[in-house]
Amino acid sequence: MSENRIEKFQKDREHLNEVVMKYAGLSIKRFYNLDTQVYKDGALPAKIKEMLGLVASLVLRCDDCITYHIIRCHEEGVSDAELEEVLSVGLIVGGSITIPHLRRALAGWEEIVDNG
Amino acid sequence: MSENRIEKFQKDREHLNEVVMKYAGLSIKRFYNLDTQVYKDGALPAKIKEMLGLVASLVLRCDDCITYHIIRCHEEGVSDAELEEVLSVGLIVGGSITIPHLRRALAGWEEIVDNG
Amino acid sequence: MSENRIEKFQKDREHLNEVVMKYAGLSIKRFYNLDTQVYKDGALPAKIKEMLGLVASLVLRCDDCITYHIIRCHEEGVSDAELEEVLSVGLIVGGSITIPHLRRALAGWEEIVDNG
Amino acid sequence: MSENRIEKFQKDREHLNEVVMKYAGLSIKRFYNLDTQVYKDGALPAKIKEMLGLVASLVLRCDDCITYHIIRCHEEGVSDAELEEVLSVGLIVGGSITIPHLRRALAGWEEIVDNG
Amino acid sequence: MSENRIEKFQKDREHLNEVVMKYAGLSIKRFYNLDTQVYKDGALPAKIKEMLGLVASLVLRCDDCITYHIIRCHEEGVSDAELEEVLSVGLIVGGSITIPHLRRALAGWEEIVDNG
Amino acid sequence: MSENRIEKFQKDREHLNEVVMKYAGLSIKRFYNLDTQVYKDGALPAKIKEMLGLVASLVLRCDDCITYHIIRCHEEGVSDAELEEVLSVGLIVGGSITIPHLRRALAGWEEIVDNG
Repeated sequence: MSENRIEKFQKDREHLNEVVMKYAGLSIKRFYNLDTQVYKDGALPAKIKEMLGLVASLVLRCDDCITYHIIRCHEEGVSDAELEEVLSVGLIVGGSITIPHLRRALAGWEEIVDNG
Repeated sequence: MSENRIEKFQKDREHLNEVVMKYAGLSIKRFYNLDTQVYKDGALPAKIKEMLGLVASLVLRCDDCITYHIIRCHEEGVSDAELEEVLSVGLIVGGSITIPHLRRALAGWEEIVDNG
Repeated sequence: MSENRIEKFQKDREHLNEVVMKYAGLSIKRFYNLDTQVYKDGALPAKIKEMLGLVASLVLRCDDCITYHIIRCHEEGVSDAELEEVLSVGLIVGGSITIPHLRRALAGWEEIVDNG
Repeated sequence: MSENRIEKFQKDREHLNEVVMKYAGLSIKRFYNLDTQVYKDGALPAKIKEMLGLVASLVLRCDDCITYHIIRCHEEGVSDAELEEVLSVGLIVGGSITIPHLRRALAGWEEIVDNG
Repeated sequence: MSENRIEKFQKDREHLNEVVMKYAGLSIKRFYNLDTQVYKDGALPAKIKEMLGLVASLVLRCDDCITYHIIRCHEEGVSDAELEEVLSVGLIVGGSITIPHLRRALAGWEEIVDNG
Repeated sequence: MSENRIEKFQKDREHLNEVVMKYAGLSIKRFYNLDTQVYKDGALPAKIKEMLGLVASLVLRCDDCITYHIIRCHEEGVSDAELEEVLSVGLIVGGSITIPHLRRALAGWEEIVDNG
């Protein structure tokens, strides 16, 4: 995993979201709005919601979703130890099939922290 | 959903775990231990870990797992509003396919709160 | 499968949706609205959208979702032969693991057609 | 789990397969044939193939599929210890989300062995 | 996503299918035939079946399967607006976890339309 | 698939496991141990357990897991014909959505056998 994997991820994601918006009708646009709203501070702070998004992404085994929530967890101040516990819950719930994603999650985290 | 659905769930679960332990070798027993350890207070409190377990169970759509974590969330003092936000994240991540489980999750929660 | 399985399904679903609405915040309510909008006539007629919803539900193996779309497909005038082809695509894509759901889908369809 | 759960499963399965065949076109019929052929003795004996079918069913979390392969494993002479190891692999690969299915798998196995 | 992503996809797919056929026994060959048959014109036209294949591939989150059905949808005359509605149903059913695949689906579509 | 894909896979996997161990607490370490233990000779030989791991990985559609078990199956003396039958079971259980993974599995196998 090269040092600028996270940066490349963010550029690709931004470009591809523009492609989505070029074709998107009302339903897709509303879904995107909802997807932003649901992680905002509420009864639970954004930090916890990002951890929820991360564990859900890990057990569903979506690398892009994991990378996104890893970035957001770092922005919300999640510590190394907290991140490790979120991933542990995901590993036990989701099993060894999640390990390749766990590996890439932690390599992404290492890159973010080192470049932080 | 009858008023004693939660109680019946717990009895069945207890009985079936006895059947598992009758056949279980070392690997299954160690997995069960690990599954208990991972939700204990650590860098993150048990309350947050139970919310992580719940959202993972919702997106993976396992009713028994959801019921178990709903019970544990209640024991850890999760509020109605907090629970609703955990489930909202799961619904957005996992989509409408999670709705039947969301319905049963909230019916279970209602029963627990009413009998609390 | 008793003769009134479909009727029971609809009553339970209605009751449980009331429980959801008792607890639902804005995100869950908006998701429910979006979930209704997306199946309405547009560039594609509702009939095709219900077939899309059915095949998605079959490959994701959600009995309640399958039953709901089976009912809606019947209302939209899907024929026996059309339904069989939707389910065939789902079976090939999703594999033998979908067969128990395929069985229940067709038993539900038979009940709806017989009571139609 | 009542003593005749396995018997009921087999009757329901037989009845529902008749409903499937009532509606099935060529593709569904061919898939059913293929699904029978693939578990027959070949380079690997049927016994191993049934264990493969069981572990696949466990990690995909399909109770009916698990029950079917549990019955077939017993018919092919799989021992308690062999079954436990098949399920252990499934548990580690698939994680704690498979535990409710593991429980029901072993309760089904206990019933089959007791009635064997 | 480079301009020749679709072309590369088709070459790789062709090559890899040759590898499959080198090792394939009767079951795999029959499955491949069945997989071709099920999308042919029948009670439903091939166009609708390709849309069914696409939505199933989106909710199951398989990029290669999505790309294949995107190409076939274009060949069958699916319009931009129809495609967007197929993807919308998949997004609502499958949730935000499908978004990375939705992005790549639309980037692939854009490439096909631009090169069409 | 270049000739040294397997070698690259093993180096990346080794490096990423070091990253995991840098962050891992007791739960992740114990899970890793369990994941090693469960494939060792027992009532079932390691060869069968690797075939179980492979079919589970195929139906759950994890390329890295498939590659790992393909390598291990080769080490345990699984023949071409046996491998084909394991993959056939996975294909029938998991459906056409597994085909892209089946393709890469056999391309990996071909590389291993050619370099064996």
